[in-house]
Parts: sequence; C-alpha cells; structure tokens
Amino acid sequence: MTGPAVDFRAHRVLVTGGLGFIGSTLARTLVDAGADVTIVDSLAPECGGNYANVDGIEAALTIVEADLRDTSRLAALVDGSEFIFNLAGHTSHIDSMNTPQLDLQLNCAAQLSLLEACRHARATPAIVFAGTRQIYGRPRYLPVDESHPIEPVDVNGIHKAAGEQYHLLYGSRYDIPVAVLRLTNTYGPRMYVRDARQTFLGVWMRELVQGRPFEIWGDGAQRRDFTYIDDAIAALLLAVDPRANGRALNLGDERPVTLKELADLAVAANGGGSYSIVPFPEDRKRIDIGDYVADPGAIRELLGWNPTIALEDGLARTLAFYREHGERYW
Amino acid sequence: MTGPAVDFRAHRVLVTGGLGFIGSTLARTLVDAGADVTIVDSLAPECGGNYANVDGIEAALTIVEADLRDTSRLAALVDGSEFIFNLAGHTSHIDSMNTPQLDLQLNCAAQLSLLEACRHARATPAIVFAGTRQIYGRPRYLPVDESHPIEPVDVNGIHKAAGEQYHLLYGSRYDIPVAVLRLTNTYGPRMYVRDARQTFLGVWMRELVQGRPFEIWGDGAQRRDFTYIDDAIAALLLAVDPRANGRALNLGDERPVTLKELADLAVAANGGGSYSIVPFPEDRKRIDIGDYVADPGAIRELLGWNPTIALEDGLARTLAFYREHGERYW
Repeated sequence: MTGPAVDFRAHRVLVTGGLGFIGSTLARTLVDAGADVTIVDSLAPECGGNYANVDGIEAALTIVEADLRDTSRLAALVDGSEFIFNLAGHTSHIDSMNTPQLDLQLNCAAQLSLLEACRHARATPAIVFAGTRQIYGRPRYLPVDESHPIEPVDVNGIHKAAGEQYHLLYGSRYDIPVAVLRLTNTYGPRMYVRDARQTFLGVWMRELVQGRPFEIWGDGAQRRDFTYIDDAIAALLLAVDPRANGRALNLGDERPVTLKELADLAVAANGGGSYSIVPFPEDRKRIDIGDYVADPGAIRELLGWNPTIALEDGLARTLAFYREHGERYW
Repeated sequence: MTGPAVDFRAHRVLVTGGLGFIGSTLARTLVDAGADVTIVDSLAPECGGNYANVDGIEAALTIVEADLRDTSRLAALVDGSEFIFNLAGHTSHIDSMNTPQLDLQLNCAAQLSLLEACRHARATPAIVFAGTRQIYGRPRYLPVDESHPIEPVDVNGIHKAAGEQYHLLYGSRYDIPVAVLRLTNTYGPRMYVRDARQTFLGVWMRELVQGRPFEIWGDGAQRRDFTYIDDAIAALLLAVDPRANGRALNLGDERPVTLKELADLAVAANGGGSYSIVPFPEDRKRIDIGDYVADPGAIRELLGWNPTIALEDGLARTLAFYREHGERYW
C-alpha cells in the first residue's frame, strides 16, 4: 500500500467525533505523525465518545467538548484547521427508528453546521467524511460498488446519505476539497462494546472476554465484511489525496465471512468461548439488510488502499485490548 | 385517463400545505367531490401559503394553521384522517442554499413529525407525498426515469430526497400505504408569482399580465417539461390506488420545450409581450440542472395517467386567472 499523500507533521488537523472509536484512533495516529491535533466531541450519550479512548495522549492534543451545532465555537475550530476528519455522528440503526428527530439533529443539522462553517472559513480546510454502507440498504447485487442504488432501510441510513450528499454538494458548490469513505463494519480496540446499538461484534468481544456465551441473531448464514481499525485509519489518511476529491469510495473486504464463521474465528482467537444462534428480535429484523459484501475496487485503484489485517489477527488484537482495558469500556 | 381509484365522497382527507398552490387546488377538487377536507398549513413566510387560494371554499372545509412539527396538534389531525395528501414543504432551491438549516426543518423535521404521527395513529391513513424531480440533479440521460441516480445539486434536493425516503421507509416498516409522486414544473392558476424563488414561470406570468418584459436566464436553449395543475391534481388523486403503494413515480411530459419556445408560447397566449435573454445569475448557475425531461411511463402504465392540457391552453388559462385575480397574488 502507498503511504498517505500528505505528511501531516505540524499541520493543523481537526477530528470531529474525536472521542469515539475511529476518531480517537485516528487522533492517536496523527499525534504520532507530528500533527497539531484538535478533537471536538459532543459526548452525546447516544454516540460513542469516551475519555478512555484518549488515555495517554491527552497532553499531546487539544480536546474541545462541543456540539457541532454550536456555531460560534465551531467557527473558531474550523478557521484554524487545514484538514478536518469528520467522524462525528450517530450510527445506531435501531435508535434512529425510535428517535428519528434526534438522529436528524445529530447526523444532518450537525453536518450542515460544520459545512457552513467550512464555507465561511478564512482558509478552506480539506474534509474527509465518514459515510457508511448502510445507505445502500438491502443489496441488489454483491459485491456492492459505489454505483449501487441508495436505498436506506432505516432513518439513520437516510440521514447518513444526506450527510454524504451535503459534503459532495458543498465540495462542488463552494470549492471545498471533500472525500467520502463509505465504511463497512469497522472493528478493533476501542470499539463500542456496551450494547448492540452500534455493532453486534462489540458485544461478542465483551462477552468472550468476560467468559459468557454470546448470541448470533438470525441463522448465522448472513455474510458480512469487516475492516480492522488500522486499515480504516490508513484509508482516512489516504483520502486527503486530491485524486479522491469529490468522490465517495467504499471500504470493505472482498473476503466476507458468515456470522457463524466469524463467531468461530472469535472463539478461536479468544482461546475458547461459546455462542448460541437465536432468532432476530422483531424490531431488528425489519431493518436488517441481509448479506453485504463491499467492492472496494475504486479506492484500491485510485489510492492503492487494501485491507492488510486478517480477521483472525484483528479479532485477537481486539480481544487482547479488552482483556487489558475492558474495565474502562464495559 | 381512468378516474381515481377512490370515490372521495364523505371520506376524511387531510391536505398538508393546503394553502399553497397545489394543495389548495387539490382541496377545491376534493370539496367538489364531496370529501370532508381539512387543510393544515404553517403559513411559513418561506413557503407558498396564501388565503387567497381558498377564496370561495373557506366554508366548505376546515383550515388549521399549524406547523407539522407541532406534534400535539398534528396527532389529532392525523387521527381523524383516512387519506393524507402531503404537500407541505419548502421548494426554493436558492433559499435552501442560503438557509440550509431552515430547509432542514421545513422539509425533514416536519415530514418526520407527520410520519411519526401516522405511525402512532389509531387508524393508519394512506399517504400521497409530493416529491420532486429536483432529486435527480443534472440528468445523466433523457428522458429521466425513476431508476435514474439520485444526485441532488442543492440542499433542497437532498432534503426532498430524504422526505421521499422517509415515506417509503415508514410505508414498508410500519405498513402505511404510501405513494410518492416526483413532480416536475407544475404551473397554473394560483401558482406562486411573487418572485423567482419557487419558479421562474410564475414571474413570467406576472410580468406579462402587468405589461412588463420578462427575462429568460441562460441562453434560452434549456429544455424543460411542464405539468398543468389539473393534470397534477389528477395524478395525486390516482396515486391513492393500492397499485401505487410503495412506489415513487415521475410526473412529466415527454414533449419538452426550450425556455425560448416556452417564452414565445407565453407571449402568444397573452396576445403580446416581450422578453430578453440574460446570463444566469452566478448563484443560480451553480445549482442549475441543465436540460430536464421526465419519463412518465411508469405512472402511465400503472395508473393510466397522462397529461391532458396542452401548454398553450394551460398558459392561456393561467394568464386569464391572473388578469382577473392578480391583485391578490402580486
């Protein structure tokens, strides 16, 4: 894989949602690279912000607790930034069906607020936005490439699609360098493990480390692809490349696994454990998307990105992290 | 054309945005058909609500001034309705770029509020939602059918696309009968004529009636298709047909005209008048979609809808209306 297009040393970088799983890991990488990093996070209880995620790097970056809708504070943050990695947002599909207006605020109003600040900034920052494969809905074909129809099956997917469209629109309308990555299941150390609102795999990790059986919902035959956090971070850094400007690019892995295969890999990586296969809860079943496999061919060809961490290794690293740090995350 | 699938006599019908151009004309038709009609309108200054639109039928219907986001009032309105024609919304492309958060409230928060009320209603109403061809953005091919990619070029298009997706999602998720019509340029008596925020053609009508020259923006070669209001109303009434459930269907006319041809037809229909061709204002140019022609084949095949009013006749009727009633609309 090629390295990032930009040497971030001494560059001013803003990471929104920077206390979350992906944002905080990105912030760590940027700090290591010598960047001048500010993270902003609302610590909204519905999202994944957690101060444990910045353990050990607090002194090396600036942390601002603010909501992106706080336009006066946001203007100053944006004005000082050369790059913005925009990872703020609400990712729970099930929450979005129960509290759609809240999801609208967190995923649409907040993004518009950030983009308006960028439009009016003294110097225009480059933005990389974390989109999601959820916008495709139930795949019409596999693997799913970027020209697949946008047919979200939950309110979160509708709002994440709007968030992506805002970015591409502001990019072209106001000459803001923008790239969108459509993330699939991202996992690794610092992922959300408290409950299944964000991802089922986090709960599996917690149960395995705590020595309890976990549940597969459905029949275990569903296929999914996964991105280890380090590979997702590499993609985010690559996406500041001008060749990605105005593009929305899939992440993902063309080697999908069934949920049952994943469960067996997780048990093996843990050196033991057990699970049961149980029917879908009714509220989940109706927004489930079935099999999903991404086609990441576009980002591979454009930027040279490829996943490098095998699922076995990624699961082992994740379990090791929670064995050591779990008490900050349960 | 076949008649509506439903005899609306004595049925309780709610028309949102009912003081606007299309909503009020629909309300007139429903009153004439013997329906028990309630209209709700926020009279938001950015939208098109105007009491002049219900001149002469005020006593035959119930008018509620309320915002769809007023959940307590909305619940009672929805609970009493068998059919909802959902025409509320903000349609100005240029306003949406200047005040995107307001557009979000009027086109997304309001629609979510209505759909939540429908989901929780004692008896579920059937909904017909007025979408727009604006969601397609700059056409990749002509005529544009419903499988054309959704690539809005302004914030309004993004939010109208979300509004449409909410309807289809709530329809499938909560078993609410829903149909979406994607309207193209709708024109006729009671259209908005105050300024060019909603449609340029309204301004042309006003200038012609008032004896002033009007302006074509661009080079006059752009193609557009138009739907006369009576044809749009016919489509809305047809769309309660169960065969349209879960569908998003284009309106439009396969016989497009260039703006210059339209201007010449309007001058002829007015018995005189003049215009000039001037360059696009810069802020409009960047959100302009170029040529647009709809393919209305799906609604024709499914519901038997066809436009029946020729452009010459529709323009003449529109001009006649404003010659008589213009003082209420300027």
